[in-house]
Amino acid sequence: MATASTQAEFVQTGYGKNSVKVLSIRRHGGHHSIVEVKADVELTLKSHKDYLTGDNSDIIPTDTIKNTVHALAKIKGIKSIEQFSLDLCHHFLTSFTHVLRTKVYMEEVPWRRLEKNGVQHAHAFIYSPETFRFCDVEQHLHGVPVVHSGVKNLKLLKTTQSGFVGFVRDRFTTLQEAKDRFFCSSVSARWLYKNIQGVDFDGAWKCIKDSIIEKFAGPYDLGEFSPSVQKTLYDTQVLVLDRVPEVEEIEIIMPNQHYFTIDMSKMGLENKDEVFLPVDNPSGNITGTVRRTPQAKL
Amino acid sequence: MATASTQAEFVQTGYGKNSVKVLSIRRHGGHHSIVEVKADVELTLKSHKDYLTGDNSDIIPTDTIKNTVHALAKIKGIKSIEQFSLDLCHHFLTSFTHVLRTKVYMEEVPWRRLEKNGVQHAHAFIYSPETFRFCDVEQHLHGVPVVHSGVKNLKLLKTTQSGFVGFVRDRFTTLQEAKDRFFCSSVSARWLYKNIQGVDFDGAWKCIKDSIIEKFAGPYDLGEFSPSVQKTLYDTQVLVLDRVPEVEEIEIIMPNQHYFTIDMSKMGLENKDEVFLPVDNPSGNITGTVRRTPQAKL
Amino acid sequence: MATASTQAEFVQTGYGKNSVKVLSIRRHGGHHSIVEVKADVELTLKSHKDYLTGDNSDIIPTDTIKNTVHALAKIKGIKSIEQFSLDLCHHFLTSFTHVLRTKVYMEEVPWRRLEKNGVQHAHAFIYSPETFRFCDVEQHLHGVPVVHSGVKNLKLLKTTQSGFVGFVRDRFTTLQEAKDRFFCSSVSARWLYKNIQGVDFDGAWKCIKDSIIEKFAGPYDLGEFSPSVQKTLYDTQVLVLDRVPEVEEIEIIMPNQHYFTIDMSKMGLENKDEVFLPVDNPSGNITGTVRRTPQAKL
Amino acid sequence: MATASTQAEFVQTGYGKNSVKVLSIRRHGGHHSIVEVKADVELTLKSHKDYLTGDNSDIIPTDTIKNTVHALAKIKGIKSIEQFSLDLCHHFLTSFTHVLRTKVYMEEVPWRRLEKNGVQHAHAFIYSPETFRFCDVEQHLHGVPVVHSGVKNLKLLKTTQSGFVGFVRDRFTTLQEAKDRFFCSSVSARWLYKNIQGVDFDGAWKCIKDSIIEKFAGPYDLGEFSPSVQKTLYDTQVLVLDRVPEVEEIEIIMPNQHYFTIDMSKMGLENKDEVFLPVDNPSGNITGTVRRTPQAKL
Repeated sequence: MATASTQAEFVQTGYGKNSVKVLSIRRHGGHHSIVEVKADVELTLKSHKDYLTGDNSDIIPTDTIKNTVHALAKIKGIKSIEQFSLDLCHHFLTSFTHVLRTKVYMEEVPWRRLEKNGVQHAHAFIYSPETFRFCDVEQHLHGVPVVHSGVKNLKLLKTTQSGFVGFVRDRFTTLQEAKDRFFCSSVSARWLYKNIQGVDFDGAWKCIKDSIIEKFAGPYDLGEFSPSVQKTLYDTQVLVLDRVPEVEEIEIIMPNQHYFTIDMSKMGLENKDEVFLPVDNPSGNITGTVRRTPQAKL
Repeated sequence: MATASTQAEFVQTGYGKNSVKVLSIRRHGGHHSIVEVKADVELTLKSHKDYLTGDNSDIIPTDTIKNTVHALAKIKGIKSIEQFSLDLCHHFLTSFTHVLRTKVYMEEVPWRRLEKNGVQHAHAFIYSPETFRFCDVEQHLHGVPVVHSGVKNLKLLKTTQSGFVGFVRDRFTTLQEAKDRFFCSSVSARWLYKNIQGVDFDGAWKCIKDSIIEKFAGPYDLGEFSPSVQKTLYDTQVLVLDRVPEVEEIEIIMPNQHYFTIDMSKMGLENKDEVFLPVDNPSGNITGTVRRTPQAKL
Repeated sequence: MATASTQAEFVQTGYGKNSVKVLSIRRHGGHHSIVEVKADVELTLKSHKDYLTGDNSDIIPTDTIKNTVHALAKIKGIKSIEQFSLDLCHHFLTSFTHVLRTKVYMEEVPWRRLEKNGVQHAHAFIYSPETFRFCDVEQHLHGVPVVHSGVKNLKLLKTTQSGFVGFVRDRFTTLQEAKDRFFCSSVSARWLYKNIQGVDFDGAWKCIKDSIIEKFAGPYDLGEFSPSVQKTLYDTQVLVLDRVPEVEEIEIIMPNQHYFTIDMSKMGLENKDEVFLPVDNPSGNITGTVRRTPQAKL
Repeated sequence: MATASTQAEFVQTGYGKNSVKVLSIRRHGGHHSIVEVKADVELTLKSHKDYLTGDNSDIIPTDTIKNTVHALAKIKGIKSIEQFSLDLCHHFLTSFTHVLRTKVYMEEVPWRRLEKNGVQHAHAFIYSPETFRFCDVEQHLHGVPVVHSGVKNLKLLKTTQSGFVGFVRDRFTTLQEAKDRFFCSSVSARWLYKNIQGVDFDGAWKCIKDSIIEKFAGPYDLGEFSPSVQKTLYDTQVLVLDRVPEVEEIEIIMPNQHYFTIDMSKMGLENKDEVFLPVDNPSGNITGTVRRTPQAKL
C-alpha cells in the first residue's frame, strides 16, 4: 500500500487484551484471602510494520498477554492492584526489547469478608459494591512507572446542609435559590502518586475514600454546610493533600444527582419537603483537578 | 372493527405506570430517616371498551397513577415497601368501583445510614447495594391482598467447603468430579406470607437475608460442606420455614457462577489451585420452591 | 436433616445452564450463513434426592447441558431457534428416563448479512439490533412441546396520529387531554402456536413483526390515528390472528415512553410543539393477552 | 480555608449538565423530520472563587445550561449534532464574558424513518442502533472551535478472510497460528476536522461509516484478506484520509471479539469449524491514530 505511507503518519498505536479476569488466593491454614481483578493491558511496539504491511513478527499476541496476567498472578501473587500492575509493566518492558510502553488499567472486584461481632469468616465473602477501586499504571522503556489510583461509584446522599444561592441569572434561568436542599452524588476520584517507593497503596486508598465520605457528610451530629458542589469538591481535595503526602495531584468528579421537591399544589396538597422525586437525568457534573503547590512540597 | 370481537377473546389485560420513583423523609428534630422506592403499579379494569373501541372513559390515566404514588407517600408515609404497596392497592380498589385488580411491584433503594463506631449520622447515607429488597402485592376487588417479598442480587463466594461428585455421565460429559471447589452465587429468594396481620416485614426480611448468608457460609471457623447447590438451596429453605412462621412458601434461585482453576501446564507452571478464572457465562442455575406442609401448619 | 421432610414439601424444582452461547455456520461454497444463539436450558428430574440428601446420582451436570447444546448444534445444525429448542427438548427427554420436563429459552443474535443494491455479501454481517427474536419451548415427558415465540425491544415512534382524551379525572389527576401527541413504544410480543406441525417459524415471526410495525405506523402517507395505546395494542393482536392462522394466543406489552412538549413560557419563548423532552422514567405500561375464540377456530 | 490556597493549585476545572435530552421536529406539511440528541455541556469559568470560598456569583447554574440546550434547539433547530454543538459553544462564549471554555459532547439517537419499497413514511420511525453517531466540540474564548466526530458500536463479523500467523512466541504463548479465522469487532472511530468551513458533516460521517464497513468486509463476492487487526485498522484510516479531505486525524479502536472453534474431541465429535463459541471477555483491543502528513496537505 505505497500511497499509505506518503499520506498518513502515526500519532499513536497500541494493542492488548481487555477485561482479563483472575482471582488469586492465599491460604494460611484454613484462613483464605482473595483478590479478584479485571485488567486491561496495552503495549506499544517500536515498529509499525504490523499496521503497514501485515508483518506480525513483532506482535506478542493478545492471547499471550492474557496468559501472562494469569501466570504472573500465580508466580507473584496480587499484593495490591497497583503492585500487580507494576509487575506486569516490568515484565513486558524487561522480557522484550521492542516494547516501548506498557499500560495497565486494573479494577478490584469488591469482595468483603463476612464478619459478625468482630469475628471474621475463614473463607466466605460477600460482594459489596459500595465503591470500586482501580488504578492506571503506565511505564515507558527506560522510564519510571506513573501510578494513578482511584475510587469510583461512591454514591452518597445527605438530606440537608446543602444550599445553592447567589448564582448568575439570565433569560434562560428558571431555577429558584435553595437555602436547604438534598445533595446526592456518585463520586469519582483519581490521583497521582509523586513517588511510589514505599507507598502503602491500601492505606492511602482507604484514607482517601474515607476523606471523601467525611467531607461530604461532615460531623455526625450536625453535618457541614455545602454552599455548592464546587466548594465541597475542593475542600475534599485539600483534605486529601493534607492527609496523604504521597499524593501529587487529584481529580474529583462530583455529579449533582437531583432530588426535587414534588409540587403537589394542583392535587390540593402541600408538600413540606416530605416527598422528593429522584431524577436520573440530566445530572449536574462538577469536576476539578488540583496539584500540590511547589512551595508545599518543600 | 367488527371482525375483531368474533375472532379474539381476552385472556388478560392490565395497564399502569412503571418505574415511579419517590423518596419519603421523616424528621425527628435533626435526625432524618429516608425510604426511596421504585414502583410498578398495574390496574385491571372491568370493561375492555378501551381496547375494543378506543373509549377511554374508564381509564384512570397512568399519569394519575404516578401522581397517586407521590400523593400517598406524602399522606401516609412509607413504613415499609410492603405496607406502602398495600396502601396503594387499597386506594385504587376503594376509590373506584371499576378496578378489578391492583398489582404493585416495589423495590427499595439500598441506602445505608453512615455509621462510625456505633454512632449514626443524623442525615447522611451511602448507597450500599449488597442486596436488593423488593415486594409484589396483588389484590382483587373484594379479595385479600397476596404479599410476596424478596431478596435479589445477594452475591456470595466461598473458596472451599463445596464439592460436586457422583453425577450422571453420558457421551457429552467432560466435567471432572470435584471434591473441593469454589462456590459463588448471586442468590434471589421470593416468599409468600400466609397471613399478613401483624407481620414485621422488616424483621422477616432481615432474618431471611441473614439465613441465606448463614447457610451458604456455615460456621465462621470451618464453614459447612455443600455437596451440591441443590442441597444448600433446600437447606436454606428449611431454615427459613423454621425461623419465620409467617412464611408459607419460598422460592430460591441460586445460580452457580463458575470459577475454574486455570490450567497452566502448557506454560510450564503448576497451578495448585492458586489462581482461578471467573467465568461470566454460561452459569449454572438451580431453582426450587417449597411450601410449608399441611401438618407443619398445625 | 430429618425435620426438613416433615416441614417442607416441593412445589417446583429445576436446574440447568443459562446463557449458553453458540454460533452455527453453514457453507455453500464461499457463501456462508450463520445463526448465533444464546440459550437457557432447564431440566426437572423425577426425584428430589439431590435437594434432600445431597445424592447427585440423578444429576446431569449443567456442564453436560452446555456441552449438549454445542454438540447438537454441530450434529443437527440450527434451522431456527424454535427447531433447535425442540431438538434439545427431544434429546433430554429421550436420552434419559428420569427427566420429567425440559424447558428452553433461546434468543437469536440479530446478525444481518451485508447487502448493497440487492447484492449480498458472501460472508460478512452487521449486528442489527432493531429487534430481538426469542422463543420458549417446554415439553414434559410423554407430552407435546409447547412453543411460544416472541419479539422484544422493537422501538417505534410516531410524531402525530395519536391522542388521549375522555379519561377519568379524580383529585390526583393533573394530565391535560391531548388530541395530538407523540407515541413512542418499545414493543414486546409473545405468542403461542396451537400446532407446530409444518409451521414456518421464520415466516410467522417476520409477519408478526411487520404487522406490529404496520399497525403502529399506519399508511405511509397519512398514518392511522391511535386513540389510546390499548386500542392500538388490541388492533395489532386482531391483525396477527387474522394473518397467522397457527397463532392461538398472543400477549403484547406496549409501554408508553413519554415525550413531553417543553414549557418555555418562563423563558419568554413559545414552544409550538417544536421541541420535546424524552422521558426515561416513569413510563406507561399497557398489556393485553387475547386468544382465538373457539368459533373462530372452526 | 486559608491553608488551602497555599497547598493546592488548580490544574483544571469545569462543570455543566450531563445527559440533557431533547428532540427537535421540523414539519413540511404532513412530512415530519426529527433529530433526538443527548448532550453533555461543560463550562470553565475565569475565576475559582466558587471552589475556594463558596461564592457562587459567577456560576451559570447547570439548570440554566439545560434550559439553554432546550431553548437553542427551539430557536435554531438541530441541523446536525456538530452544528448544534457549535451553536451551544458560541452561545456561552458570547453571552458571558467570564466563560473561558465550552465543551459539548453530543450523541444522536439512531432513529431511522420507516421505508418500504422506496416509499418513506411521513411521520413514523424505528430505533435502529446499528451504530451511534457522536461529536465533541470544544472552543476557548477568542479561539476557533475544535470539532471531532465519531462512530461507535459498529459491530461487524466475517466468517473467513482473516488470519493471524508469524507472531512472537515466548514461554507464555499457547495460541496456535490461524490461517483462516472469524473476525468480529465493535468498531469505534473518532476524527478531527482540520477546517470546519463548509464541511458536510452528515455526508462525511456517512462516508466514513461506509468506509469502515467496506474495508472490513471487502468485495461482496470474495472479501479481502486481513492478516491482522492492525493492518485492517490502518488500511481503513488510509481509505478515510483518501476519501474525506476535511479529515486531519483519525483514531480507530478495533476490538477483537473472539469466536473460538469448540473442541469436541472429548465428546467423540470432530468439529470441522462448524460451531463456534462467542467469547464475551477477554477481548483483544487494537488502536491506532494517524494524521495526514504535512506533504499530503500541500
